[in-house]
Amino acid sequence: MRILVIGGVAGGASAAARARRVNATAEITMLEKGPYVSFANCGLPYHLGGEIAKRSSLLVTTAELFWNRFRIAVKVGYEVTEIDRAGSVVRGIDHTSGKTFEVPYDRLILSTGSEPISPAFMSPACVNVRHLWTLTDMDAILAEMQEKSSDGSTAVRNAVVVGGGFVGLEVVEQLVHVGIKVTLVERNPQVLKPLDWHFARIIEKDMAAHGVEMHLGADIVGLKRDGDRATGVELADGTVLDTDLVIVGAGVRPRTSLAAKAGLSIGKTGGVVVDQYTRTDDPNIYAVGDMIEYMHGVLNEPMRIPLAGPANRAGRIAGAHAAAGHSEPMGPVLGTSIVRVFGLTAACTGLNEATLDARSIQHHSVIIQAGHHAGYFPGAQSMQLKLVYSPIDGKILGAQGVGGDGVDKRIDVIATAMHFAGTVYQLAQLDLAYAPPYGSAKDPVHMAAFAAINDLDEYPTVVPPDYDLAEYQVVDVRSAKEQAALPLVGAVAIGIDELAERWTELDPSRSTITVCHSGKRAHVAACWLKGHGFETVRNLTGGMAMRSVIQS
Amino acid sequence: MRILVIGGVAGGASAAARARRVNATAEITMLEKGPYVSFANCGLPYHLGGEIAKRSSLLVTTAELFWNRFRIAVKVGYEVTEIDRAGSVVRGIDHTSGKTFEVPYDRLILSTGSEPISPAFMSPACVNVRHLWTLTDMDAILAEMQEKSSDGSTAVRNAVVVGGGFVGLEVVEQLVHVGIKVTLVERNPQVLKPLDWHFARIIEKDMAAHGVEMHLGADIVGLKRDGDRATGVELADGTVLDTDLVIVGAGVRPRTSLAAKAGLSIGKTGGVVVDQYTRTDDPNIYAVGDMIEYMHGVLNEPMRIPLAGPANRAGRIAGAHAAAGHSEPMGPVLGTSIVRVFGLTAACTGLNEATLDARSIQHHSVIIQAGHHAGYFPGAQSMQLKLVYSPIDGKILGAQGVGGDGVDKRIDVIATAMHFAGTVYQLAQLDLAYAPPYGSAKDPVHMAAFAAINDLDEYPTVVPPDYDLAEYQVVDVRSAKEQAALPLVGAVAIGIDELAERWTELDPSRSTITVCHSGKRAHVAACWLKGHGFETVRNLTGGMAMRSVIQS
Repeated sequence: MRILVIGGVAGGASAAARARRVNATAEITMLEKGPYVSFANCGLPYHLGGEIAKRSSLLVTTAELFWNRFRIAVKVGYEVTEIDRAGSVVRGIDHTSGKTFEVPYDRLILSTGSEPISPAFMSPACVNVRHLWTLTDMDAILAEMQEKSSDGSTAVRNAVVVGGGFVGLEVVEQLVHVGIKVTLVERNPQVLKPLDWHFARIIEKDMAAHGVEMHLGADIVGLKRDGDRATGVELADGTVLDTDLVIVGAGVRPRTSLAAKAGLSIGKTGGVVVDQYTRTDDPNIYAVGDMIEYMHGVLNEPMRIPLAGPANRAGRIAGAHAAAGHSEPMGPVLGTSIVRVFGLTAACTGLNEATLDARSIQHHSVIIQAGHHAGYFPGAQSMQLKLVYSPIDGKILGAQGVGGDGVDKRIDVIATAMHFAGTVYQLAQLDLAYAPPYGSAKDPVHMAAFAAINDLDEYPTVVPPDYDLAEYQVVDVRSAKEQAALPLVGAVAIGIDELAERWTELDPSRSTITVCHSGKRAHVAACWLKGHGFETVRNLTGGMAMRSVIQS
Repeated sequence: MRILVIGGVAGGASAAARARRVNATAEITMLEKGPYVSFANCGLPYHLGGEIAKRSSLLVTTAELFWNRFRIAVKVGYEVTEIDRAGSVVRGIDHTSGKTFEVPYDRLILSTGSEPISPAFMSPACVNVRHLWTLTDMDAILAEMQEKSSDGSTAVRNAVVVGGGFVGLEVVEQLVHVGIKVTLVERNPQVLKPLDWHFARIIEKDMAAHGVEMHLGADIVGLKRDGDRATGVELADGTVLDTDLVIVGAGVRPRTSLAAKAGLSIGKTGGVVVDQYTRTDDPNIYAVGDMIEYMHGVLNEPMRIPLAGPANRAGRIAGAHAAAGHSEPMGPVLGTSIVRVFGLTAACTGLNEATLDARSIQHHSVIIQAGHHAGYFPGAQSMQLKLVYSPIDGKILGAQGVGGDGVDKRIDVIATAMHFAGTVYQLAQLDLAYAPPYGSAKDPVHMAAFAAINDLDEYPTVVPPDYDLAEYQVVDVRSAKEQAALPLVGAVAIGIDELAERWTELDPSRSTITVCHSGKRAHVAACWLKGHGFETVRNLTGGMAMRSVIQS
């Protein structure tokens, strides 16, 4: 049995190694068109800023190790240009020798990945305008950063990062760490599109506090050039951002031309179509990683989700199925993602409201603020957690978290519940580990689920943080001190602990919205008013903590 | 509608507050026999050591706040001695006035909690031999710790902690922090009984390294006394531990006498029997918290699980159901627990192997070692993660983790999967958040699941870390350096990267066990040998990392 793997990054190397473990005697070959078997592409930004000190740390494996340990023959610099399905052979060019090659297979595993999109301004190329996609890209950027000016100072003082996605923000953070003035340009009106805009806004404000200049909703129309160097980035509004370095993270597209040329089906979202064992429509050809479509856990339809986790899991499945003829099936993918930006963590799973709106899928959401562990234990860090769910059955559709420590844990817990198509009712009943240094008896996950259940059961419902309060009787139940620090104009101020005494001052016939800092006391107030005959009472979810973020 | 809550700690206060939220006009009263409405009992150890600096931080709420915010009348010092179900009234003594009282109810919620067990040696009482169960206990212990000797030094130089459970170890840690020499006495042969002994051993070794003297499997037969003070603790083997202070955490028992006297059913495990809405067999009486039996998520039978998390959730359900007539049902409880001991975290969920063995429930287990985030990113902390599962269908039965950062996250993720009766196959497919500072593309949870799947699918199976290797052909695939640092006597040493060359030196007819540091390379080796005709090959799960812990 000859197993041939094309492409080493993420899924490919996993597939080859797993194939060997389940089949000790198969002939396994891996062809990689780049110069490295595999490397830690998620680590590239961190070497730019020196947080990962050694470049060699990024080289997670070598051709030598693959041969010695797994008897997998790895050929780097081998670019496959054709899959001859009838002949069960691939053909291509060995870039080292310049010669063509032909390799036969019984089972073929494609892991050609994705490639960064190059916006029009990248052509013609400038030496200081780069993607950060490969080790070669990283080396070129580092070379720029290590250049010295004639006066001996660092030549790169200003950098423009194009694209405020996950990797873009990692790059921003790392460049700031080494003292570079960074300007971020993003086409969308917000960073981190998988988050809803009000959560993204928390990150944007924090980035601004770290000295990052941001141009959101901004299109780049061209570069100011000096020979083969860019000296500025020109925006559609006429702004010119002077710069010494431009790093472009404007999204990726799947590398599917080889598969398409071989007649394999490409799905609606542009990835190769595979079944639950990662088989293409040719039963002898598998495909994994950024080039394929995964079954989305919420939408239950195929989608491209270019992330390392699913790629690795798909690789394992392809390797086993190709080499042994059977394997566990691939699970649904939720697009669970996370990024550290300075002192904050932003993470999400499933779908956000913007996406659900665009698809006309009914949803509700709540936002809570909570400490990552018991408030009475020192060092609790605050997080905002948003839960998005179906108003029909309470099924969890997505979650977003922004804050300090412990955001990762809560998103992973919710992603796990979503794997099982869990509801907010089930989320409220999870038996999570509690001791003061780690959590609370009512974990932030529980608090979010409780808030969602209150909303669904109309105990009472919520309004979003940016809701127009103009026509409502707004009751601000924060303390006088909180109200003074962050005023809410037009609200009736009745501290929560006075409400039971003073609620008769309010008009029960008016539609009422209760507000506090996080939404928790406002919930108590809303329940009280509703229970005392107020016709329509709702609670501003996320409270002033969220409203103040998005209003400023 | 009159709702009466008896007992404020954990479940009781939650129940009362939720009752108010769902029913704004009910008359809600809470009777608490102690002097405080509610307090953070999980925080008590941390105030002893000063980590929670202010005593007031532990007072999570007050009677005044309950009245002002919720219009809940709280009466402290009110001990209920009788429930008159026919008359729908409770009777008791107000310890402040010394008078008896009678309070009527329509719905009664019992939250009488549990009480610490007092071993025989505690009678007659000594002033320096204490439980740590209430604020009063804590104050008394602190008073002892603040005593000075005649020379002005601290009087408490040596302390004996009795009981190596979760709270016991928190107390040990905090006393060591303030410079006290601590000796731990535990009746069982290990600390932390919910962990299997080899995981407990990791904690024991670390405690010893922090100067804690341990007497495990040791019975206390009496105290050496000087008037009303203990000066020593006498063990059954004749050892006398000189001491200035004894803190006893020898387990708890439910406070059910009031419920039992009223004729409410008590279950086999000693807790009050309740349905999924926390109703006792009297439909007007609910019970929550440490005094009841919960439905155990793995055993699917009622069990006492005296933990704050389930108590709070049960309280919410009781409050809603009592006040509104309906609520979400209580979910299964898994006994998920966690403790910080010096620099380590120990956590578990579900059942351990010892418990499953005692109940003759079939199970398998694997142990992995992994970093809490990507190895190429600086600061990865190591953890051991154990997964226990059914060999029949791969259903997860339990998990244990010991290590640095991130153990809490992995146990919570597994507990979440267990809520949904998940299998190791599903665990392997979870879509968890990955970026280098937070995890790995293959998370420790995935790695544990992969190892379990390999075991179930015989790719190949594993043997436990303490397995007797004497009769086997043992192949040690670690590097020469690792082998020199931690020898494995009697093993054939063939480094993993030489095995494909040298495996023919081994005898394929002998039963073979492969060994490496964590079990990962040994798995690769075992696959290779099995695939090359070796009849019986197994992998030492947990590798030398676990074996060295439990052999020393």
